[in-house]
Amino acid sequence: MTWQMAQRAQRLNPSTIREILKLTERPGIISLAGGLPAAETFPVEAMAQATARVLRDAPREALQYAASEGYGPLREWVAQELAGQGLRVQAAQVLITTGSQQGLDLVGKVLIDPGSEVAVEQPTYLGALQAFAPYEAQFLPLEGDDEGPLPQALRAAGRARFAYLLPNFQNPSGRCIPLQRRLALAEAAASAGLPLVEDNPYGDLWYDEAPPQPLAAAAGDQAVYLGSFSKVLAPGLRLGYVVAPAVLYPKLLQAKQAADLHTPSFNQRVVHEVVREGFLHQHVPTIRSRYRAQRDAMDAALRRWLPAGCHWVRPGGGMFFWVTLPAGLDATALLPEAVAAGVAYVPGAAFYSAQARAHTLRLSFVTVDVARIEEGVRLLGGVLQRALGGAPSASGSAGSAGAA
Amino acid sequence: MTWQMAQRAQRLNPSTIREILKLTERPGIISLAGGLPAAETFPVEAMAQATARVLRDAPREALQYAASEGYGPLREWVAQELAGQGLRVQAAQVLITTGSQQGLDLVGKVLIDPGSEVAVEQPTYLGALQAFAPYEAQFLPLEGDDEGPLPQALRAAGRARFAYLLPNFQNPSGRCIPLQRRLALAEAAASAGLPLVEDNPYGDLWYDEAPPQPLAAAAGDQAVYLGSFSKVLAPGLRLGYVVAPAVLYPKLLQAKQAADLHTPSFNQRVVHEVVREGFLHQHVPTIRSRYRAQRDAMDAALRRWLPAGCHWVRPGGGMFFWVTLPAGLDATALLPEAVAAGVAYVPGAAFYSAQARAHTLRLSFVTVDVARIEEGVRLLGGVLQRALGGAPSASGSAGSAGAA
Repeated sequence: MTWQMAQRAQRLNPSTIREILKLTERPGIISLAGGLPAAETFPVEAMAQATARVLRDAPREALQYAASEGYGPLREWVAQELAGQGLRVQAAQVLITTGSQQGLDLVGKVLIDPGSEVAVEQPTYLGALQAFAPYEAQFLPLEGDDEGPLPQALRAAGRARFAYLLPNFQNPSGRCIPLQRRLALAEAAASAGLPLVEDNPYGDLWYDEAPPQPLAAAAGDQAVYLGSFSKVLAPGLRLGYVVAPAVLYPKLLQAKQAADLHTPSFNQRVVHEVVREGFLHQHVPTIRSRYRAQRDAMDAALRRWLPAGCHWVRPGGGMFFWVTLPAGLDATALLPEAVAAGVAYVPGAAFYSAQARAHTLRLSFVTVDVARIEEGVRLLGGVLQRALGGAPSASGSAGSAGAA
Repeated sequence: MTWQMAQRAQRLNPSTIREILKLTERPGIISLAGGLPAAETFPVEAMAQATARVLRDAPREALQYAASEGYGPLREWVAQELAGQGLRVQAAQVLITTGSQQGLDLVGKVLIDPGSEVAVEQPTYLGALQAFAPYEAQFLPLEGDDEGPLPQALRAAGRARFAYLLPNFQNPSGRCIPLQRRLALAEAAASAGLPLVEDNPYGDLWYDEAPPQPLAAAAGDQAVYLGSFSKVLAPGLRLGYVVAPAVLYPKLLQAKQAADLHTPSFNQRVVHEVVREGFLHQHVPTIRSRYRAQRDAMDAALRRWLPAGCHWVRPGGGMFFWVTLPAGLDATALLPEAVAAGVAYVPGAAFYSAQARAHTLRLSFVTVDVARIEEGVRLLGGVLQRALGGAPSASGSAGSAGAA
């Protein structure tokens, strides 16, 4: 063959989730698989007004090439917003990215050599594994419990290039790391000389109480922090940011420049126009309110329809329930049956870098409405009942088992 | 230090051009350095109408996550547009990218191993060197003449992973490869088993006659083709595309997904809405007309003000004049003096991967208006006169020397 691929191309593979999502595009399937925000939350009117204003007031700047660092006022806005969350950074540390997925790619490009170890939770965000894998990372699994990775696990991972952590309402597990654990993790990372890459797409989506301060607030120059507008405004804008210490920023910036010159100036100015007067302070509570109701509906449906032996922790935020099935069930193997029954989920195995736990699955509670959540979970319960050899579920008697 | 960089980070360096552009932001400097399209050409009204329509008719789709391949109708449009230029491709081969710079990055990611050779013209597009360098490419210089690289040079470069070529009105040289040379290059590449990466940001910007068919039209599955909306609509949208053979497409797609999930769906739909009814067929001629006048003005100014011994070829399209100074002059060394005199350019050395020719420089004729082109070139002529030991230029007597 004429084309000779790079070694790293072997680490580029189709996304399991994307393949599943294709299955679920069949009409009539209730998909609890995707990680799509509810489109009803997109602030269409505010976007339309902001776009019209930007194209009226600064059309040439919005449509011209721009600085790789990002639009100055948006970088300032990000720095101020983070200060309000306990993370004090300079605007000069903020690099605007084409979604926070690009932040992960740039971090990988600058920090990972072939064979470098990258410490990751089990399970962890699939998109991060996909971003780091092509740089030929070796993933080092971090042992953890319900409060997050164990400090001693970080202490033992000092040889890794960095640890990738998603402290707030993790995708897929929904787990939020409590403050004391965060402080212990920052201390452990410091003593081990282990840099941290903190990813925070879901921090604003809390339904009971706001999450503690970012890990990076305690880790200082030993942390890179990634944020996103995808969950609080709209993902189709592809707008995120990386906050990096001064020692790292120039290389990330040059990697950004090589990757796409800059994030669309049009999008940056429109989003700044939307958010600059405090729009999110009114808007995000409406998203929280919707998603809280959907979370509660899914929790109730799981209690009602899932057979005994299923376990989950009701998440305090984010977008997902993480369900552990009775031992012996394989969520990947069951998926075709679930799709045939009319419901889809993501098998948990996709989220492990090693030693996948096959009897886990992820359910999104934000994409479909309350009635369809109820129906989807009912269908899932039936599939699981049949797999366990029981009669198709018809009553809610098994519901409360394992819910915490 | 806590942070250990990847080996490839050594190949990430500040852009010479960006550093120069910072100098030229001082008020009063006439910058012929940047590669910025004239903002007066941006179709602001069409953009405003298209944006309003998209946010009215398909707001949720435009603001939601979308397929990594890109927006289907835009991919179809690209395939049809290319067919009109002699390049027959399937929409399924089109991958929408976040500017064509991202296309270069993805090509590098999928095809370049540390130490892989990549054949490049001398000079060539700096952004391509910057995209490929972090993948630790070794650049293999291609010998060429005024018609482009020599076929025998391609034949001798068969060991390279690919040859990167910019056939239409190259940045920086302005050179357009004639049809016969294209056919000879495609044949040479085929016989050497050398894949081609063809970059075409400027093909629509022709002022005398349309360029010949793309190289890829003759090279078939042995070529990747990159296109862009930056020069015919607006660069701030960051919208480009890659056309790839079936053997390569899946890996490029997976690299794209890892890099930023997808190009902003909002931008894709807005641009499709702008172009779908043939807008470019009216709009691009207005850009050509403006730039043709500016090209002619710069050609006349160069004839009038540059000292004897300067050489350039009037470009048939694109954005740049490439000027060769009398031997012994160093454009990099002269730049501070030029900036002090009130004019900026890009020293040609930036565009060479090796053995830079120091007595070359690049001038953009699209960014500033005709009057400022005249004044900028007059100032440049004075700087060069003084460097040659002559009196400050005050007459046009030296103008015609070397122009072709």
